[in-house]
Amino acid sequence: MTFPVVGMVGGGQLARMTHEAGIPLGIDFRLLSDTPRDSAALVVRDPVIGDYRDFDTLRDFALGCDVITFDHEHVPLEHLRALREEGVVIRPGPDALEHARDKGVMRARLSALGVPCPRHRIVADPADVARFAAEVAEGPNEPAAGDGDALAVPVVLKTVRGGYDGKGVWVVRTVGEAAEPFRAGVPVLAEEKVPFVRELAANVVRSPHGQAVAYPVVESIQIDGVCDTVIAPAPDLPGERALDAQALALRIAAELDVVGHLAVELFETADGRVLVNELAMRPHNSGHWSREGAVTSQFANHLRAVLDLPLGDPRPRAPWTVMANVLGGDYPDMYQGYLHCMARDPGLCVSMYGKEVKPGRKVGHVTAYGSDLAEVRERARHAADYLRGTITE
Amino acid sequence: MTFPVVGMVGGGQLARMTHEAGIPLGIDFRLLSDTPRDSAALVVRDPVIGDYRDFDTLRDFALGCDVITFDHEHVPLEHLRALREEGVVIRPGPDALEHARDKGVMRARLSALGVPCPRHRIVADPADVARFAAEVAEGPNEPAAGDGDALAVPVVLKTVRGGYDGKGVWVVRTVGEAAEPFRAGVPVLAEEKVPFVRELAANVVRSPHGQAVAYPVVESIQIDGVCDTVIAPAPDLPGERALDAQALALRIAAELDVVGHLAVELFETADGRVLVNELAMRPHNSGHWSREGAVTSQFANHLRAVLDLPLGDPRPRAPWTVMANVLGGDYPDMYQGYLHCMARDPGLCVSMYGKEVKPGRKVGHVTAYGSDLAEVRERARHAADYLRGTITE
Repeated sequence: MTFPVVGMVGGGQLARMTHEAGIPLGIDFRLLSDTPRDSAALVVRDPVIGDYRDFDTLRDFALGCDVITFDHEHVPLEHLRALREEGVVIRPGPDALEHARDKGVMRARLSALGVPCPRHRIVADPADVARFAAEVAEGPNEPAAGDGDALAVPVVLKTVRGGYDGKGVWVVRTVGEAAEPFRAGVPVLAEEKVPFVRELAANVVRSPHGQAVAYPVVESIQIDGVCDTVIAPAPDLPGERALDAQALALRIAAELDVVGHLAVELFETADGRVLVNELAMRPHNSGHWSREGAVTSQFANHLRAVLDLPLGDPRPRAPWTVMANVLGGDYPDMYQGYLHCMARDPGLCVSMYGKEVKPGRKVGHVTAYGSDLAEVRERARHAADYLRGTITE
Repeated sequence: MTFPVVGMVGGGQLARMTHEAGIPLGIDFRLLSDTPRDSAALVVRDPVIGDYRDFDTLRDFALGCDVITFDHEHVPLEHLRALREEGVVIRPGPDALEHARDKGVMRARLSALGVPCPRHRIVADPADVARFAAEVAEGPNEPAAGDGDALAVPVVLKTVRGGYDGKGVWVVRTVGEAAEPFRAGVPVLAEEKVPFVRELAANVVRSPHGQAVAYPVVESIQIDGVCDTVIAPAPDLPGERALDAQALALRIAAELDVVGHLAVELFETADGRVLVNELAMRPHNSGHWSREGAVTSQFANHLRAVLDLPLGDPRPRAPWTVMANVLGGDYPDMYQGYLHCMARDPGLCVSMYGKEVKPGRKVGHVTAYGSDLAEVRERARHAADYLRGTITE
């Protein structure tokens, strides 16, 4: 048998669910995980425990695989480029990954491609943030002295690397507040605070052959910078705007030579424009609904793409699918909540990641599907809240 | 977290797919497998490699689990009864399992319950088989001398234990042919050869609470005693007959105190009767369609049952779902066939078990679903034949 060996770097829930999707494919799935207690390490045969930032660890792991792919975008690119020289197959490749790893590189490239983005530039220090705010406000280059510390308009600051789930992102309104992001010693990107009406995500998968599939555009509801609920497809999204968003994501995937799953997080504005917020080149929280909700899940299609197999049908199986994240709350024992949730809703799909419960930490998600959106939302919402302990009945 | 530890004895594809279904549940799934190359052992963290027939091996494994369950019915019952005395939770329990392990016990119990079965009895030797054949034929107690070696009617002989996939089953027409089954030294059950028009399976899942769910009755097409194709639901099955079959399976599950998945294999006769052929108390080949075809799969519901969690919705997600087994053929490399099958049919669900290809061995299955039965059957058939190498385009 020549079933290939796929190595995934990173032991989080994305790797866990990718392994799950790999079982039917009959592939040999290997994992490089920080600790033996990581979400994916709990369910995979012989996980390799080690630090992905250590070149020798990464190399030893990669040399045993036919292809390597990623649960996150934190692997040093210089290591990946060195491994590529040795003939390791890396999907997505480091040149594509750079756009998911570094927000400055991503913004520069997308802007060069004419992709709609918030106004942005790399800023040097808090005074430069003030100048950027003034530029956005189309006012003077320096804030008027009478404003004291206030920026002309609020600005979003992001460290170009290392952020996730709202970490590494600040909304600042004063020069004083603008100091914090520079303390990490990572370049800081300033962005216009887009007055969006909601967030969308256009998820696509692309193979080395250049075949690509687009999932329905979803609505992603964030709370404090953390994804809370995803609705597939996005309700009341005009068909043409949905097609435009899918075409945009497919174009980005092709231009950046992405292989695997690409999530394009989008802002939808009141005047009907769609701007790119973030990119992720791996299975993504906005695609978890697809596990039960689509003919082929993002996890299965990510694997098919990195193996250069023909991609599977991304179409939804139900009129509406809603996923709600389960965050850690006050109850450390979420298993107990299964009794209520499963008895109340025999069609509910519960997915827990094997992670220790900590307040605010993503420890699982629930998915419901059906033909009545309000009902489907309520089912997912109720289960997520009950498991977290926010409600008790 | 108090997520439970579920131990499964046996490392075949049923355990593999049960582990897959356990990943979203967040449980700790442990495996006792004969070899590290067994289908499930390839995809599970830290499989225990050992002989389930060895009491100490089984005991060490079981004592680390909150509940143990099974991939097959070959575990010695005296060992399970001893472990039960020690407080090990065993689901299904040994008293139920005995009916899946021993066909003589099963026939006696079902007959006592008034469940329709083929005529049957334990036979002592080939001459006794001849007497049984004569009884079935309602002829003389001994075959007429002029018939020589021939039985009055063909008879099905089964060793009461250890058979699977047509092994341990013989259809005999002469006294000479009847000698073979006795050579194993296991009691032999003789059964009337039922003139059935097709085989059905009624699959149900029951929890310790007594909650139970019934999957749609399926048609199971066997070739040489091996399941080839399963169609869910069984086409052209009158609604009342389907309900009767489900009710029969639910009754058997309750009477035998089955916990977990119970497959009741049935013969449907030309005059519209339904007779029980075999029982299996574990996920079953006739339920593989449910992985993609039902709201809750047999694997997920088996786990929910052995954990005494509320059971999931067994209803089908599509009008028709067809599963076809992929048997080993002349091509050892089935992965190569993915290119054709996935490109031809993006909605196809391929499931390979990681097993070495040997002629006739079940090494995987494919599932297709949709609204046109003929088309769905053709899709599954084509993929199974292509992967096996029976067809090349």
